[in-house]
Amino acid sequence: MKTLLLHARTFARIAPRLKGLNAALNIVTVDDAQRFHEAWTSTELKEPPQVHLAFGNIDAFYSPSVRDFMTAILKSPDFDWFQSAAAGIENPALVAIGQKSQRYTTNHTQAESMAEWAIWQAMDYFRKGPGHRANQAQGKWERLRVREMNGARWLIVGYGSIGQAVGKRVSALGGIVTGMRRTPGPAEGAARIAAPDTLMAELPGADVVLLCPPHTPETEGMANAAFFAAMNADALFLNLGRGALVDEDALLAALDAGRPEFAALDVTKIEPLPEESPLWKHHKVVITPHDSSDTPGTITRADDTFLANLRLYLDNEPMKHLVDRAAFSAG
Amino acid sequence: MKTLLLHARTFARIAPRLKGLNAALNIVTVDDAQRFHEAWTSTELKEPPQVHLAFGNIDAFYSPSVRDFMTAILKSPDFDWFQSAAAGIENPALVAIGQKSQRYTTNHTQAESMAEWAIWQAMDYFRKGPGHRANQAQGKWERLRVREMNGARWLIVGYGSIGQAVGKRVSALGGIVTGMRRTPGPAEGAARIAAPDTLMAELPGADVVLLCPPHTPETEGMANAAFFAAMNADALFLNLGRGALVDEDALLAALDAGRPEFAALDVTKIEPLPEESPLWKHHKVVITPHDSSDTPGTITRADDTFLANLRLYLDNEPMKHLVDRAAFSAG
Repeated sequence: MKTLLLHARTFARIAPRLKGLNAALNIVTVDDAQRFHEAWTSTELKEPPQVHLAFGNIDAFYSPSVRDFMTAILKSPDFDWFQSAAAGIENPALVAIGQKSQRYTTNHTQAESMAEWAIWQAMDYFRKGPGHRANQAQGKWERLRVREMNGARWLIVGYGSIGQAVGKRVSALGGIVTGMRRTPGPAEGAARIAAPDTLMAELPGADVVLLCPPHTPETEGMANAAFFAAMNADALFLNLGRGALVDEDALLAALDAGRPEFAALDVTKIEPLPEESPLWKHHKVVITPHDSSDTPGTITRADDTFLANLRLYLDNEPMKHLVDRAAFSAG
Repeated sequence: MKTLLLHARTFARIAPRLKGLNAALNIVTVDDAQRFHEAWTSTELKEPPQVHLAFGNIDAFYSPSVRDFMTAILKSPDFDWFQSAAAGIENPALVAIGQKSQRYTTNHTQAESMAEWAIWQAMDYFRKGPGHRANQAQGKWERLRVREMNGARWLIVGYGSIGQAVGKRVSALGGIVTGMRRTPGPAEGAARIAAPDTLMAELPGADVVLLCPPHTPETEGMANAAFFAAMNADALFLNLGRGALVDEDALLAALDAGRPEFAALDVTKIEPLPEESPLWKHHKVVITPHDSSDTPGTITRADDTFLANLRLYLDNEPMKHLVDRAAFSAG
């Protein structure tokens, strides 16, 4: 019998969907107070349990007990399968688990909420959110000529699950999407697909440039001074990928020079963003604390992914989004 | 030969599309400096001209010369056709023109930009825009659990051109739309249509309630204390219709009592909203100065409507969106 580790909140939420698996599965939980329990009986465990399976989601990773959750996995001699609620695998904690686990599966449903972040930021930029709010604070009734999403040209650099989730929404709202990726098109949500080596030629034609490629040696620091200088003066720069994709000093200099007009970042090079970073106070920068995926919907969709893969695991069927173990070895 | 009155900026923009109509049409313009010109020759006119046709758009009505534009129409003995860029006809200036003109046509393409306003406001509410901005101002990196448009339940009160333009976008983003209007469904963008007499029963089921019905004796003040008390505590109230639909004192009391959670208003009972109105400073209220339609796209689409109707007028064909003259008589 395999032992599955869940955060207590996760178990409470999905318990009804785990009934009937008792014969095949021993379930243990860890709560925010760092206590382990036998899930169905609520019996507290004296020692951290040895586990074979675990589901690492927001409940577990944003909990005060994240260290206990990690340690239980890393100290178990026969750890077999880890389901991540995230798409990325380069976080050090996830790399450690990936090296430990026989099998590691990812989840790509965060893209839905992340895509809504991009729509939010673009609408607030096009509709002159900052200008309207400044006027409201002064009790000033002044009509502002704003722009439309309808007809706006988007360049989405990295057209994977996140890029496509954004592209579908932008297209549905009348925007014109160029998706940038190695694999040629067509692709859902994009009017056309452009190859990464055309980046510098594509930048001047975009009203919104969104970064969401994977973080690799080739993409690191890709948004540099030359990149920003190639953008339109009335364009918006968005980063939903990784902070390391952006040269933050170059971005600040570019904004001060007036090109692009505005930037919104859900990710920064150092997270949490240090209090002294000039990004916080720059009037042409919106910072959100890497919470673009933090919705109840994201949690529920990750539960669905986990439960579907758990069923496949118990039936000895191939699981979805299985990562090649070699991906964790190089480091 | 008929004389057409345009704002000078409108003529400058659409002149290429008016070429070839010289034989049928004498075109005069009025500019922001209150000067009238013969359009094609730029000859200044000594007197305000007598005109037969006019196109009343943002250029004309938000110009310092709006009074000259109006007077030229109202003093012309044979004024025949007025194309409005607006959908509504209850503004006193428009009523005066409607009573004067033999024919009066409206335009419904403002709905596209107005619908984007609703998406903007809903996204900023769901994503906790105010909370994120307060944190950024303090340099505080704190993840906020936010909500999704995907799966959000909208009640759109008044499912005409504006309501449908919103409904289409909300549905495309995964929201679930109930459109409220007299005419039964189906209707584009709505999962279902509900009759106006079910209003009080529909309010509790909505995450977003948007008002955009026409302003009539029945709809005036419809958003009153009972209306707000029936809304969800975590719901958003939006008004894209007319300020007179809302009891503003009741709205403020309802927000203070915690139901609904937030309101965004593009229209207010008195416009411009007086500086002393408590709506300006309330932390649960967003005010925009009736500029939800104020985009270049709105201007271009109204040009298209005017030019299409001008062609029909000159060909003696029935024009689109002709208003029954009786609509202007009651007053």
